[in-house]
Amino acid sequence: MDEVTIGMIGAGTVGGGVYRALKRNGGLLASRAGIRVRLKKIAVKAFDEPRKVAVPESLMTLDWREVVEDPEVQIVVELAGGTTTARQMVLTALRLGKPVVTANKALLSAHGEELFAAAGEHGTNLYYEASVGGGIPIIKSLRDGLIGNRIDCIYGIVNGTCNYILWRMKEEGAEFHQALKEAQRLGYAEAEPSLDVDGHDSLHKIGILASLAYGFWVRPKEICREGIRSVSLADVRFADQLGYTIKLLGVAKRLAGRGVPGEPKTIQAAVYPALVPNHHVLANVADSFNAILVCGDVVGDTLFYGRGAGQDPTASAVLSDIADAARDLKHESPNRVPPFVPHERNGRVAPAAECVSRYYVRLEVLDRPGVLGRVATILGNLGIGISSVIQPGDCPGKTVPLILMMHKAPFAAMAEALEAVGRLEAVKRKPVMYRVELCD
Amino acid sequence: MDEVTIGMIGAGTVGGGVYRALKRNGGLLASRAGIRVRLKKIAVKAFDEPRKVAVPESLMTLDWREVVEDPEVQIVVELAGGTTTARQMVLTALRLGKPVVTANKALLSAHGEELFAAAGEHGTNLYYEASVGGGIPIIKSLRDGLIGNRIDCIYGIVNGTCNYILWRMKEEGAEFHQALKEAQRLGYAEAEPSLDVDGHDSLHKIGILASLAYGFWVRPKEICREGIRSVSLADVRFADQLGYTIKLLGVAKRLAGRGVPGEPKTIQAAVYPALVPNHHVLANVADSFNAILVCGDVVGDTLFYGRGAGQDPTASAVLSDIADAARDLKHESPNRVPPFVPHERNGRVAPAAECVSRYYVRLEVLDRPGVLGRVATILGNLGIGISSVIQPGDCPGKTVPLILMMHKAPFAAMAEALEAVGRLEAVKRKPVMYRVELCD
Repeated sequence: MDEVTIGMIGAGTVGGGVYRALKRNGGLLASRAGIRVRLKKIAVKAFDEPRKVAVPESLMTLDWREVVEDPEVQIVVELAGGTTTARQMVLTALRLGKPVVTANKALLSAHGEELFAAAGEHGTNLYYEASVGGGIPIIKSLRDGLIGNRIDCIYGIVNGTCNYILWRMKEEGAEFHQALKEAQRLGYAEAEPSLDVDGHDSLHKIGILASLAYGFWVRPKEICREGIRSVSLADVRFADQLGYTIKLLGVAKRLAGRGVPGEPKTIQAAVYPALVPNHHVLANVADSFNAILVCGDVVGDTLFYGRGAGQDPTASAVLSDIADAARDLKHESPNRVPPFVPHERNGRVAPAAECVSRYYVRLEVLDRPGVLGRVATILGNLGIGISSVIQPGDCPGKTVPLILMMHKAPFAAMAEALEAVGRLEAVKRKPVMYRVELCD
Repeated sequence: MDEVTIGMIGAGTVGGGVYRALKRNGGLLASRAGIRVRLKKIAVKAFDEPRKVAVPESLMTLDWREVVEDPEVQIVVELAGGTTTARQMVLTALRLGKPVVTANKALLSAHGEELFAAAGEHGTNLYYEASVGGGIPIIKSLRDGLIGNRIDCIYGIVNGTCNYILWRMKEEGAEFHQALKEAQRLGYAEAEPSLDVDGHDSLHKIGILASLAYGFWVRPKEICREGIRSVSLADVRFADQLGYTIKLLGVAKRLAGRGVPGEPKTIQAAVYPALVPNHHVLANVADSFNAILVCGDVVGDTLFYGRGAGQDPTASAVLSDIADAARDLKHESPNRVPPFVPHERNGRVAPAAECVSRYYVRLEVLDRPGVLGRVATILGNLGIGISSVIQPGDCPGKTVPLILMMHKAPFAAMAEALEAVGRLEAVKRKPVMYRVELCD
């Protein structure tokens, strides 16, 4: 049987998971792939760091260059995280013509184009199944399984931490900060949770999926981003009353440009909390699970569901990439499936202002006659129709919530309307607004 | 850009879909894969058959050998169906060293081993993503994406027709024959529906998935099969009352043999209608959709969902296999991922009698005291525990339903118990029994 020698950088959560999975299932993987994987070295930050999975010291080195530059190491597995040294590690390996497996979405998001170019230049490849959706084989599915499809849209719950928080808010009637605390206690959220709850991580992931689907590299700064810090229990409850669940969605949609040659192919790329109808499968994704809905013009709706993060699911994806890289080495086909194929030259991300959605709006208003009339007039003047209204309160003189569901409107018009509404004397707080998705 | 020439056999439902998808998205597929696909010939049964998708007569031939033996044709796409001539077509192509793409699960189920051997012998490959789950890339996911996992179990709703019928029975309160008629009207079911409703099609598919997951070829006759003809509206309703939905499941489970070398690795492989808890995602698969739950020891639970049949979803999978085959031709790596890797020598399918489940039982009994006691005694003597009972009727002297939910028991004990129960004087009809799954 053939053998391939790999070197790893990082023995933290994911690295430990890969080490353990290789130890447990390496034989099985070898008999399935026809190639035995031998782990020769692991670069770590310190020999005596606390680790969930024990790694033999005989494999360890403190210098990542020892892994990358070892002439016996044929595949480099980068699980260090970060975007500065990690970039250097990956570039160094690629320049030596060594294929790299990585789970690092932040690195891809920031430096993807540079890394892909380096891989191409040096006749090697970069594998990143583990960067999106943990153990869900969404990258392979998108670029292999659905290769014959124009992708109409992708809606992804791609951050397990946020899904856990929003799910708990709804199930337990918890406020955001309580649910966050629980997520931190369970190890789902970091002490400094911004990467997750402010939508950065989801942005990295939807950027990668949008790029693969639409064939041009979608840069992070082009992606509209809203996190879930501002989602209140009140909104979770009103949404439920209306038949919806609030989820943090990564969204990539084709907006126009189906046929006319030369016309720019415009897409929407965004991360935001949105109301999803309760009967939709995405509304029912519980706990810290991920789910990605991909709609293709030939295949129709497909959905991929699983654990989107964590030691073991991510290790499962890393192992599949190692097998892929090993096969490509064995068959001398490093570019069989290149890391990224820029197949769309006229691609363009629409500014958020242009994008059309339905909306949920919550106002805090004085409970007196005429308020709804004034709000509706402002919306109507901007061409925005109201589809339903709930006014749960009945406390004359006090402020009460006023919930409005809107028909489709461009974001720019909606923002303008809400600014005007917010200036009304009877409106006592900044209006709260969420998009409503997947209800067609 | 490279070009590959393909020939197709069959221009029926799937063939027409592939022709149309290639025409619409062939350019996109070429720019993604870096290889242009040229369709040279299509073998048909008659030039003037009625077709949903028009195919130019200039491409047609009545002789499949003209397609397979054309020296320009590099990839043969078999979409003729059937298992006799189709076997000949595929074998002829493979013996000429030509890769074959097929959607034919019946052929694979009956002759898989022979075809895989022929592919290996002649240095070529057989691609069959379209054979299970329509457009859902489940084959690739199972053998590539999850390659580092021991598969604990697979539960699949893999027949859209049966799912439509059972879904409609529950949603509309229809009896089986009414729902079947509706499925036939919509074109979901054939005039002769046996292949679907008696579980043959599901059996072919779960057999393929079980073989890939467990590494030995699972033969059709080893798979226990029950269809949905006997499912009555009464059972659908009682199940719902208990919090369950009846679904036709393809089941493949590892039963034992985790560690001891030489010990046979025993699996369960079966198709049967079963009760699934309403909150489980598989219970909520609506309409004619398919969904396949795969539990791996590293990745945890993953689920793949989409349209499992029909012209376009199947075409999507065929296109992805054509791209795969074209890449393997270009890179001269015909066996990069062989059609089947027999990685388990000690594999064995357990007889149905050995397999353990929970059960739902419905009896028609005379409404008089003491009946439950006699039934419970028989079950108890065979070591089968009752977890709950509903006795909805209250009509002394008449027959009423008696619904029992059982704890786990081997099928053999359950069958023996039900035979004894059926002989009781107060039991007026053959007992109805379904397994209960996914409630742990």
